[in-house]
Amino acid sequence: MIFPILFTFFLLLSSSNAAVQDFCVADLAAPEGPAGFSCKKPASVKVNDFVFSGLGIAGNTSNIIKAAVTPAFAAQFPGVNGLGISIARLDLAVGGVVPFHTHPGASEVLFVAQGTICAGFVASDNTPYLQTLEKGDIMVFPQGLLHFQVNGGEAPALAFAGFGSASPGLQILDFALFKNDLATELIAQTTFLDAAQIKKLKGVLGGTN
Amino acid sequence: MIFPILFTFFLLLSSSNAAVQDFCVADLAAPEGPAGFSCKKPASVKVNDFVFSGLGIAGNTSNIIKAAVTPAFAAQFPGVNGLGISIARLDLAVGGVVPFHTHPGASEVLFVAQGTICAGFVASDNTPYLQTLEKGDIMVFPQGLLHFQVNGGEAPALAFAGFGSASPGLQILDFALFKNDLATELIAQTTFLDAAQIKKLKGVLGGTN
Amino acid sequence: MIFPILFTFFLLLSSSNAAVQDFCVADLAAPEGPAGFSCKKPASVKVNDFVFSGLGIAGNTSNIIKAAVTPAFAAQFPGVNGLGISIARLDLAVGGVVPFHTHPGASEVLFVAQGTICAGFVASDNTPYLQTLEKGDIMVFPQGLLHFQVNGGEAPALAFAGFGSASPGLQILDFALFKNDLATELIAQTTFLDAAQIKKLKGVLGGTN
Amino acid sequence: MIFPILFTFFLLLSSSNAAVQDFCVADLAAPEGPAGFSCKKPASVKVNDFVFSGLGIAGNTSNIIKAAVTPAFAAQFPGVNGLGISIARLDLAVGGVVPFHTHPGASEVLFVAQGTICAGFVASDNTPYLQTLEKGDIMVFPQGLLHFQVNGGEAPALAFAGFGSASPGLQILDFALFKNDLATELIAQTTFLDAAQIKKLKGVLGGTN
Amino acid sequence: MIFPILFTFFLLLSSSNAAVQDFCVADLAAPEGPAGFSCKKPASVKVNDFVFSGLGIAGNTSNIIKAAVTPAFAAQFPGVNGLGISIARLDLAVGGVVPFHTHPGASEVLFVAQGTICAGFVASDNTPYLQTLEKGDIMVFPQGLLHFQVNGGEAPALAFAGFGSASPGLQILDFALFKNDLATELIAQTTFLDAAQIKKLKGVLGGTN
Amino acid sequence: MIFPILFTFFLLLSSSNAAVQDFCVADLAAPEGPAGFSCKKPASVKVNDFVFSGLGIAGNTSNIIKAAVTPAFAAQFPGVNGLGISIARLDLAVGGVVPFHTHPGASEVLFVAQGTICAGFVASDNTPYLQTLEKGDIMVFPQGLLHFQVNGGEAPALAFAGFGSASPGLQILDFALFKNDLATELIAQTTFLDAAQIKKLKGVLGGTN
Repeated sequence: MIFPILFTFFLLLSSSNAAVQDFCVADLAAPEGPAGFSCKKPASVKVNDFVFSGLGIAGNTSNIIKAAVTPAFAAQFPGVNGLGISIARLDLAVGGVVPFHTHPGASEVLFVAQGTICAGFVASDNTPYLQTLEKGDIMVFPQGLLHFQVNGGEAPALAFAGFGSASPGLQILDFALFKNDLATELIAQTTFLDAAQIKKLKGVLGGTN
Repeated sequence: MIFPILFTFFLLLSSSNAAVQDFCVADLAAPEGPAGFSCKKPASVKVNDFVFSGLGIAGNTSNIIKAAVTPAFAAQFPGVNGLGISIARLDLAVGGVVPFHTHPGASEVLFVAQGTICAGFVASDNTPYLQTLEKGDIMVFPQGLLHFQVNGGEAPALAFAGFGSASPGLQILDFALFKNDLATELIAQTTFLDAAQIKKLKGVLGGTN
Repeated sequence: MIFPILFTFFLLLSSSNAAVQDFCVADLAAPEGPAGFSCKKPASVKVNDFVFSGLGIAGNTSNIIKAAVTPAFAAQFPGVNGLGISIARLDLAVGGVVPFHTHPGASEVLFVAQGTICAGFVASDNTPYLQTLEKGDIMVFPQGLLHFQVNGGEAPALAFAGFGSASPGLQILDFALFKNDLATELIAQTTFLDAAQIKKLKGVLGGTN
Repeated sequence: MIFPILFTFFLLLSSSNAAVQDFCVADLAAPEGPAGFSCKKPASVKVNDFVFSGLGIAGNTSNIIKAAVTPAFAAQFPGVNGLGISIARLDLAVGGVVPFHTHPGASEVLFVAQGTICAGFVASDNTPYLQTLEKGDIMVFPQGLLHFQVNGGEAPALAFAGFGSASPGLQILDFALFKNDLATELIAQTTFLDAAQIKKLKGVLGGTN
Repeated sequence: MIFPILFTFFLLLSSSNAAVQDFCVADLAAPEGPAGFSCKKPASVKVNDFVFSGLGIAGNTSNIIKAAVTPAFAAQFPGVNGLGISIARLDLAVGGVVPFHTHPGASEVLFVAQGTICAGFVASDNTPYLQTLEKGDIMVFPQGLLHFQVNGGEAPALAFAGFGSASPGLQILDFALFKNDLATELIAQTTFLDAAQIKKLKGVLGGTN
Repeated sequence: MIFPILFTFFLLLSSSNAAVQDFCVADLAAPEGPAGFSCKKPASVKVNDFVFSGLGIAGNTSNIIKAAVTPAFAAQFPGVNGLGISIARLDLAVGGVVPFHTHPGASEVLFVAQGTICAGFVASDNTPYLQTLEKGDIMVFPQGLLHFQVNGGEAPALAFAGFGSASPGLQILDFALFKNDLATELIAQTTFLDAAQIKKLKGVLGGTN
């Protein structure tokens, strides 16, 4: 027994809220603030808070765009709360499309795990940056810029997107314009689209007015 | 009916707390944290939370400095909470002065909407940067530096100040020194001002000791 | 001569780069980094670096949208570089429209200086937040969300927008989609718009393919 | 030709450095600053700057730990510079191990693409959080905490790690202690390890003293 | 009585939550978020919240490492919450050692107040940076990197460490590896240490398995 | 020779700019940006960059305020550049005073190493927070708020101040007002001080006009 007193070393530190400063697992029922969700009490944090299995399941692509996005953001994966990172799974059936969208809160790195994906973003000066990505390729989409992904091959494609925020947000262009009660005339005025076009897409997406 | 299944696309995302990550309207009654006020529940957010009409009303300049500042910070305008921006209205009657002050939490851009304003700030190396601003001019005051605004014309002046924080703070030099119970001797010791000068300004501003 | 030695007090500090830490006026010719432009040498900084007069001049609204935006971002107004704030002027003739757009890098507070402006943004859950703003009203548009401004009155409208970044960016939806060489088929695939509609707007905006 | 003047709309904006504010592709030859590498000139930015194919190639696991890490950080993938995100590929042959290490600059989300990985981290209060991850599982490792990954199956494993920084850093415990010229006695004093153990690992890893 | 109306100047501001935006004294009983603890109500803030006397008392070095660390982080010193700074006291008896450790959340500046301290850190490229510090010397340890301090003299040493976070965290290497129930075999696999060495240190530090 | 191949493990990482991401030692001759100075080339970084001995030397208090401040900010101590922390030494002879000042860029924690110091700050709501600090006490001064330190005892006092920025800045109230060429009338207008008082202090401090 050579080091008998070492057990009591740093006791003050050990009894402080050390675990709290390492992470802040989201307590989804507590108040949320600008920096994210409130933290779960340290005593109730479990390893399961840091693990998420939802991305192992293929999303349902039996829909018109033949695509599905499965997020693991702080609201679904409480362990990333406050840590500035999250991830999502993207399934694209043959012919599948993730239409133009933005993430207001973070940049994205897309990793193609299977298949071929044509992806692109448009910069503020309206320059498009397009690339056909094969399995193993990655592409970065800077924060807030419009971008899209399209299955460019003859087989299903699978990709994973990493984000530099636990809550990167997602605004899908067509949904923002056509899947609500914005007046057709107002949309026409602010997009230069024809009223007939707008009404057609409202019909498809369930918008009114 | 060509796109029947699209309505269910991204259902997982739609049912998540998408709105929460876009903004964090202040719930002034809930706990506040270092990053700002807690967020209102998404379901209770209204467009009025993002609109503020208080800056349309001229401030009352019937006071000794012939000036008024009307803030639209997070505490008055909950919609800016967590968004890193706020604004204030500045009315300067003829002869009006906003005396030396600092904003500890943000830089400021002043826009002159009406009249002429002589403004200036002093850098850490004691260099003053002074300018007479006409209608339409803007001037930036770096975070935390002493600055002032004076009506430099023969008519009332109106300006608006944008800040890079939802709660930029405001410390008015004379109020900090003379509008409290700091002992005259202590102020003299830490400002080199004469006791008589200090007592005179304490009298004006309501300070004691 | 009572305080002869005070002149030398804090000499070490006075001779350090005090001015540098207060601000970082953009040297537009030097390398730029993720946090903004390089700083001008302190010795060459003048008060004019902190003042900008371009917003006093009405933008030219003799165009199809009857609107003009005049920015005072870091690239135009070097004094705001690194200070997390900037401003822009918005002129809307009768019938003028600033079509749907986003600012990838900052939230915006719009102040209506003259006239009536109908403004709105759409949240990630597709809820629109619309308001008719009168002179003196302000409205906040959270970072990265689609928003627009329309002159809602019978007279020209004037507004100023404050941003929580020196380089907030600006992506105009129609320009991003139609004012470049993105293939019509690709746009159709990623927006669900009809090819005829796309080609029509490409024609208007100068896009090809 | 119905909208002839629209071409000139926002010309001021179009001619500004719009592209610059969207992203900051690393110029690896220019000065680096605390926020990252200097930006390439906008005119020389190509789509290839935003795409990286190195992660499609399996790392060489013919080494003693039967593992390989292939990073796509800003130094390898200039497009992520300044965007707060990066990614790495992790190959683990049967019996492969990524020994205890930390990322000083970012949290990590690990996604298992193939095989079984036993992963874990230790919190500041010394609590270990361990989990056996199957294909499709993700796990988050909070910034700066010691963690490891071990192939827990009978087949090669493949994983991808997303980071909330373009330069998350990597400090491998054994390399930091044993792969340099730190004196054995000093290591013994600051780790409580026996000198024989230290010398043995120095021998393996190429350290001296 | 020359300035009678000045008392009412800035009343709107005075009645706002001015004090709240200046600081956010931790309410240790309220919910914590990613940015820190919730703030105490302004009305209950006292000067004692900003003052801490615990660092005036020598830590108990009657332990095996002959050293003691006394933190004044947000959990012990609520006044620093949200302010991005904290401090700790370090006592090193003759022969005392603070073994290899990291602070996941902040860089550290160590100031030697008394005695001689041999300190060092190891960079990500495994380069050690070592220095013998005399009274009055300071040394900086970059965020997240392994570092240590050893009393290098014949008398007790005293130092103070400043941190760039109110909750910098502290992970002590030996405690993370040996003072818990991590399986010996797993530690061996992820550190290359011999099982006998691991069991020996588990015995010393109270670990199991 | 049991682990022959391990030497080549992580070669890709070892040859990357690992050291660069750990720290960014200031190259004072290279361009500066909003986030700090450019980094020295990794190959030229030495341990001396991380060590500073200037704080071991007492400042010269043979001046009118009987005080001296010796900073170790990024400009004096290049190793802290980009790391969000710095430190300064404060010497106060008997009767010594550090007059009212602010740090625009960081909060401060003051540690009293010797003697007695009366310190205080004033909050935005004009509430003063004052305390007599004995040896070993610490006090925090929130960012941007006016504060002071006075030797409150019969012996010299010594203190060290930690800051949450590598370049916290320092604006000394009297110097900003009186140690430059600001017109006496303008100062009177913006501070309410009497012209005679202003001229007296200009005389002491070397100001003109």
